[in-house]
Amino acid sequence: MVSAVLIDIDGVLYVGDRAIDGADQALRELDRRGIPYRFVSNTTRRSRRSVARRLQNLGYAIPESWIITAPVAAAAHLKESDRARCFLLTTPDARTDFEEAGIVAVEEGADAVVVADAADGITYASMNRAFRLLMNGADLVALEKDRYWMGPDGLMLSAGPFVVALEYATEKKAEVIGKPSPAFFLRALREIGARPDEAAMVGDDIVTDVGGAQACGMQGILTRTGKYREEAVLRSGITPDLIIDSLANLPEYL
Amino acid sequence: MVSAVLIDIDGVLYVGDRAIDGADQALRELDRRGIPYRFVSNTTRRSRRSVARRLQNLGYAIPESWIITAPVAAAAHLKESDRARCFLLTTPDARTDFEEAGIVAVEEGADAVVVADAADGITYASMNRAFRLLMNGADLVALEKDRYWMGPDGLMLSAGPFVVALEYATEKKAEVIGKPSPAFFLRALREIGARPDEAAMVGDDIVTDVGGAQACGMQGILTRTGKYREEAVLRSGITPDLIIDSLANLPEYL
Repeated sequence: MVSAVLIDIDGVLYVGDRAIDGADQALRELDRRGIPYRFVSNTTRRSRRSVARRLQNLGYAIPESWIITAPVAAAAHLKESDRARCFLLTTPDARTDFEEAGIVAVEEGADAVVVADAADGITYASMNRAFRLLMNGADLVALEKDRYWMGPDGLMLSAGPFVVALEYATEKKAEVIGKPSPAFFLRALREIGARPDEAAMVGDDIVTDVGGAQACGMQGILTRTGKYREEAVLRSGITPDLIIDSLANLPEYL
Repeated sequence: MVSAVLIDIDGVLYVGDRAIDGADQALRELDRRGIPYRFVSNTTRRSRRSVARRLQNLGYAIPESWIITAPVAAAAHLKESDRARCFLLTTPDARTDFEEAGIVAVEEGADAVVVADAADGITYASMNRAFRLLMNGADLVALEKDRYWMGPDGLMLSAGPFVVALEYATEKKAEVIGKPSPAFFLRALREIGARPDEAAMVGDDIVTDVGGAQACGMQGILTRTGKYREEAVLRSGITPDLIIDSLANLPEYL
């Protein structure tokens, strides 16, 4: 019995520059039935404001506050844990989420090195700077450890590979903020007053979405949109509670 | 009883732009005693010709053919195994070792993705291209998996972190050509007609030099020059057969 839903964004609401057919109608059907939902995204290239604007441009009417993103969660967490001076290996857009929360971006003497999907922010020089700061005592904070996502013209590396690179170089372990961190899912569930055992997570990542949700006590529903690849599912050893062709098909299973 | 020696280059013969004091005299002492030696380097930024020229500029008289480097070994191995079309994630200088061996550098349809310490060749775009080629079936060939080395102004990331990043993204395992691959050490020993049990390896990397040599049946001698850090030694769980302050001290222990 699923009475609350968490929904991934990239690969589930859209792929590249195209909204998934029927996804918006599915959300309206959830509204009609009074099933609460929130969005939990490991898209760490964009600020929450940009994510909301992009969804609006694609035809979705989703309040910005319904979107839980790793940069926003990380900024709050770093501030609370008194690590306000950070080296931000992020895009300029994602950086705004940190600045608005009072995090100071520094190049020297960082409390933490924060790694997002930094896109062209990844260079040998930026990776080496992150590495040296870590060797000098900074904590390694990963917004996510996803392998890749489906971009407009093919697969794109996410933050995960670069986080793993820095873990290997420094022999430090990253603290992961986004999915599949239980704190991230629970934060979203708290906003709709739902318990994990009555909620489902819908996403295109077999590990972070489905495996992460299941480890948290939720049901894990995999969609065949976005970066879905059957081999990745088989290799993962994770069995989704349900596989749907797209978010459009969700209401018929609830 | 050590009657043949393999010697690392970076961090052992020089650090940054400075030759290690007394290292050249130590080599001449080996010559005097008739102890054969060769150089085995995981420095993958430079072609063998550049490595030889650099050593010459630092005052060493070492024949180019005595230097065994991972790019040269990799190029020969790829050619023999019929993988002549490669995406070379290397510096332009290291690329010449491959071109001279008949390897064709391609951006599409590669048989293998070859990862060296590519320095500023590491960008999001080059990593993503490597990733896509691997997902399309190319083999992952790592010239080395070293974590870092000591540059003129501090620690520098080596190829290892970026190899691990691609392994994580693709769930493929890299074939490692340089140290600590047994084939690499054995190739050098063959040139001087020595068996592993009568040879020692001298280097500043506790894992690839000392651990790699010991796994091969050689003695592993660690020098306190270059990237040597006591914590790294303790953390490694590897016990060197001998620790020396620098290569200058080697002859007194043989």
